[in-house]
Amino acid sequence: MSEKKNIDNFLKLNKNKKIIVVQGLGFVGAVMSLVCANSESDYAVIGVDLADENNLKKIKLLNNGVFPVVASDPQIKIYFENVIKKRNFYATFDPYAYSKADYIIVDINLDVQKNSDEKGNLNSFNVDLNPFKSAIRTIGENCKENALILVETTVPPGTCIKVVAPIIKKELTKRNLSNKMVKIGHSYERVMPGPDYIDSIKNFYRVYSGIDEKSADATEKFLKTIISTREYPLTRLGNTNATELSKVLENSYRAMNIAFAVEWSRFAEESGVNLYEVVNAIRMRPTHSNLMYPGIGVGGYCLTKDPLLASWSKINHFSSIDGLAQSENGVKINDKMPHYAFDFMIKAFDLHSLSDKKILLLGVSYRSDVGDTRYSPVEPFYLNCINHNAMVDMHDPYVKYWEEINIEISQDLDEKLDMIWDIIVFSAAHSQYKNSNIINKICKMSNVKILDTIGILEQKEIVEMNKNNKVKVLGRGDI
Amino acid sequence: MSEKKNIDNFLKLNKNKKIIVVQGLGFVGAVMSLVCANSESDYAVIGVDLADENNLKKIKLLNNGVFPVVASDPQIKIYFENVIKKRNFYATFDPYAYSKADYIIVDINLDVQKNSDEKGNLNSFNVDLNPFKSAIRTIGENCKENALILVETTVPPGTCIKVVAPIIKKELTKRNLSNKMVKIGHSYERVMPGPDYIDSIKNFYRVYSGIDEKSADATEKFLKTIISTREYPLTRLGNTNATELSKVLENSYRAMNIAFAVEWSRFAEESGVNLYEVVNAIRMRPTHSNLMYPGIGVGGYCLTKDPLLASWSKINHFSSIDGLAQSENGVKINDKMPHYAFDFMIKAFDLHSLSDKKILLLGVSYRSDVGDTRYSPVEPFYLNCINHNAMVDMHDPYVKYWEEINIEISQDLDEKLDMIWDIIVFSAAHSQYKNSNIINKICKMSNVKILDTIGILEQKEIVEMNKNNKVKVLGRGDI
Repeated sequence: MSEKKNIDNFLKLNKNKKIIVVQGLGFVGAVMSLVCANSESDYAVIGVDLADENNLKKIKLLNNGVFPVVASDPQIKIYFENVIKKRNFYATFDPYAYSKADYIIVDINLDVQKNSDEKGNLNSFNVDLNPFKSAIRTIGENCKENALILVETTVPPGTCIKVVAPIIKKELTKRNLSNKMVKIGHSYERVMPGPDYIDSIKNFYRVYSGIDEKSADATEKFLKTIISTREYPLTRLGNTNATELSKVLENSYRAMNIAFAVEWSRFAEESGVNLYEVVNAIRMRPTHSNLMYPGIGVGGYCLTKDPLLASWSKINHFSSIDGLAQSENGVKINDKMPHYAFDFMIKAFDLHSLSDKKILLLGVSYRSDVGDTRYSPVEPFYLNCINHNAMVDMHDPYVKYWEEINIEISQDLDEKLDMIWDIIVFSAAHSQYKNSNIINKICKMSNVKILDTIGILEQKEIVEMNKNNKVKVLGRGDI
Repeated sequence: MSEKKNIDNFLKLNKNKKIIVVQGLGFVGAVMSLVCANSESDYAVIGVDLADENNLKKIKLLNNGVFPVVASDPQIKIYFENVIKKRNFYATFDPYAYSKADYIIVDINLDVQKNSDEKGNLNSFNVDLNPFKSAIRTIGENCKENALILVETTVPPGTCIKVVAPIIKKELTKRNLSNKMVKIGHSYERVMPGPDYIDSIKNFYRVYSGIDEKSADATEKFLKTIISTREYPLTRLGNTNATELSKVLENSYRAMNIAFAVEWSRFAEESGVNLYEVVNAIRMRPTHSNLMYPGIGVGGYCLTKDPLLASWSKINHFSSIDGLAQSENGVKINDKMPHYAFDFMIKAFDLHSLSDKKILLLGVSYRSDVGDTRYSPVEPFYLNCINHNAMVDMHDPYVKYWEEINIEISQDLDEKLDMIWDIIVFSAAHSQYKNSNIINKICKMSNVKILDTIGILEQKEIVEMNKNNKVKVLGRGDI
């Protein structure tokens, strides 16, 4: 049976429902599909992704009742089971789906190509808009002339007006359709994979805009059926440049604030100061409550590239001579953090060689209590160790298979802690590592060097561990 | 009668009281003296400052019942009247006072010398510790061997250990006194001149430390008699480096966050975006609630120099090769803001010459609803106008005399608005300027160029003003 037929059959099952097509089935699109399919407005939802090997697997899983993203949010299961019961979600690779859509939500990636050296120095970067343009073109080649196209992808500011609208309108014209009725909106999500995955979409503030009044109105009306806008009111901004800029601004802000903590960590390490207690003291001021702690680095899909998207846009779209120096600099500084953490380890423990040293990394995810390894700072840390001929093993309760490194990860912490190690590194702040049994086990070891890169250890635990071992903590010069 | 005699007589009046001497009678010291003299612990308080012309005037005023700092906080009057009634405060220039002190609070300035060009570019900077050292030496030459010396001055991290303690101990030894009993603590204030002047000292969180355990204990015990520590608990940090670092860190953070808004203002201006509405939308996120708005610049005594103190310290005290690039950069960017505001005005209004243009500046203070012109960003803006041969007049409800420029400031806004102007600049966000009568008066003008540098105007006011005039707002590309 042809895929078009499958889609038609799915829609027959969901007769008289408004149809949402979600483009992209990654960390955002997959969950956005679930949230849409669980809306009280009773939509039929089709998720579309490109027909590559990975996606085809994912599409098959979805249609067979297996949700492809592992997440600690119990709501995911409830939402997905509900969708299976209602039979109002279908996944496909066939762009034919767009031709049926009343609403098309763009949740694909837009990547930045970083050219960095082996010490993490960002030499140059580029944004290749072509995959994004091609995805938009596919929509334009298929969509109805009066569809609402809602872009959620983080894009260089200016993209909806300068890229999306011209492509869609051109393709509609080619098909002898009106290009006056299409609506193009922009509204960015603030998805946070983890225990509040669903809530981070459904129950959180949203900013939105449209390329014109009718687009903005249609976007507002649609979002009100998806998001809990009574508790989390929507904010309309003046134009799509504004919402696009807003998204990259807020992530640049976060990235820069992390980078700020980096230089003060170095200062604290040199001057016998515990930066954690300093940050805690300053955070009591409401105006300073978001001051960041020291750490091994920044990971995830957004903070590692969004400031560069903004800078690239400033240079290319609006022809300004300079980019966004501070925002760009935030990324540059953060990219070097895991390399610094490695150098810190070498220096703090006075290691002349790592050859054949047995190193255990506790945590490979970029964030605590989440199984997300995209751009994890543990990756360059790990590679540095490997390149220095260390024997590295690792554990992560949330990651069975580390895709980027192509390696199986142990889930058995007890077994790992029963082995003999030269160095144990706390590299992610998973709750499991705060367990007193774990701490006790490490305290009972001897002659192990323990590096805490994320400030997970309490002062009294450090004192206890230090009896038979040697503990060092990034951002602390007082140990 | 000799000044020593005056001091002795004052102390006779305050027999059996513990004696606090406050060194420095500026924005911090004067109010700290009031707070100490109003403590339930019933201290006798002596304020000391150097015997220069200005200080001698100030000392005379204080002893004659006139508080020298103009502030909108009504508590200042109440506190000062109480002190006059109790007769437990005396001001002097005579270092003899230190010899009587149980507690000495150091509230003097420590300045940074900035070498900048006429466009606000910071070419170099230096910290001259000599005046500070000399002030500490005076204490050491006079103080009791068991006094508590509490440093509140913002200093380069490392100063208490590397500068204060050695000087005090050396001077005690010279006088054949023990140098084992003296206590040296550090605790920084977060004074904010304005409507909450007293509260910003008495009712706010404090961080403290000491050069040793007994110093930290004595500092804690003392602060508990001065600050409302039940509602605003104290935080003890591990050493004086930590509290010194904490102070400059928190001000660097603020300065950098303002500098961050600068580059996004430029971006918004170029791309037709209203940055104010973007910032408001992002501020709904609790983690981003302190995002800063666009503005004319940064003023006041702290944010304009504290990051440089830190950077200087990193370079000089701890012999690191680099300073604090981001923190230093924050100051550099902020220093150029008023120059940018001036250039923005020229460009936005397409002004070919300012010669004989009549410009009215509304507000010269660096902060809304405060009469504080120290390092006000309005100063370089004003000087730029003057240097371009404009005829500049100004108004400020809180500033009668602009010390830095040496000029009288009008208090009569109605009179000013009855005159003919080419350009009116909103340069401080005083509440008075938000009054609808003022806005109406400006709306009724014609052919006036109106520059809002601080986002004080509402959208509907801008629309109204724009009917007969031309309005431009920093950080807004949508007007």
